[in-house]
Amino acid sequence: MNLFKVCFHVSKLEDWPVALKNINNFINDISGESEFDIRVVANSAGVLILTNELRGELELNMKELSEKRVTFEFCNNALSFYKIDKKVVFDWAKVVKAGITEIVRLQDLGFSYIKP
Amino acid sequence: MNLFKVCFHVSKLEDWPVALKNINNFINDISGESEFDIRVVANSAGVLILTNELRGELELNMKELSEKRVTFEFCNNALSFYKIDKKVVFDWAKVVKAGITEIVRLQDLGFSYIKP
Amino acid sequence: MNLFKVCFHVSKLEDWPVALKNINNFINDISGESEFDIRVVANSAGVLILTNELRGELELNMKELSEKRVTFEFCNNALSFYKIDKKVVFDWAKVVKAGITEIVRLQDLGFSYIKP
Repeated sequence: MNLFKVCFHVSKLEDWPVALKNINNFINDISGESEFDIRVVANSAGVLILTNELRGELELNMKELSEKRVTFEFCNNALSFYKIDKKVVFDWAKVVKAGITEIVRLQDLGFSYIKP
Repeated sequence: MNLFKVCFHVSKLEDWPVALKNINNFINDISGESEFDIRVVANSAGVLILTNELRGELELNMKELSEKRVTFEFCNNALSFYKIDKKVVFDWAKVVKAGITEIVRLQDLGFSYIKP
Repeated sequence: MNLFKVCFHVSKLEDWPVALKNINNFINDISGESEFDIRVVANSAGVLILTNELRGELELNMKELSEKRVTFEFCNNALSFYKIDKKVVFDWAKVVKAGITEIVRLQDLGFSYIKP
């Protein structure tokens, strides 16, 4: 079975709804035919989802996705910059030291890159 | 002769003029020295070109490009979401089931990714 | 020692501050553990940094980065389009014929792609 490895880069708050729609559509599309390993890396203003009202609208879908093979990763540099306490990070998500390093590392491992 | 394989991802209506300028410049630049296989994948709000007045301004250039080795592909999920009838898709363009799957598949085939 | 090769694509004036923050964080993160070869390719409205007041704020950091292994490259097509004289390009930066060709070429050489 084919394995699709994809990294979604979310660097703007307003990109979250489109990113999640992309991921849901992608999973529906390949479901049953291919496996996937999806990493969503949020850096810069992408981490503002954690403290924005948009969180309430999207959190349930994000949690559902995290129970499949979708990993959500938040850049610690961006959390520090925006003074966001790590405690507000979803407990099913990961904090990475630097989002860009993670995205580069993933591409070196053969992940496709998508900027929603 | 070198072959450049490039996927342009257009997810916003306003990205179309820049995307086309990029493609025209790219083709002019490599012309005669290298061959190319360019895929323009429109998803999310990128498909709104089909129903927007911008279509009139850009369609001729898009059609010209489609007669070279540039393929325009529209995401069916996005067409459904925006209630755009497939009949309005340019007859020289393609509809794909899910734009993201196409972009990932292309990167797996060695296409470079450009977000204009 | 690991070598990270990364291409940052800056096509909008307002993406410069985030791009530079990304690069600074990335270098700090991997410093001492990995080497890097970073190319920042500015095309479209990304070249407007040259004539915008933002230049004054960012130039010192850009120059510092250029003294490490960060290369700044400006698209000549975009310079022509915006009627920007090549003379105003930073003397530690490069002008390339077409930014898109450069980005595609870099990806073909194994560079990761980041759109800030």
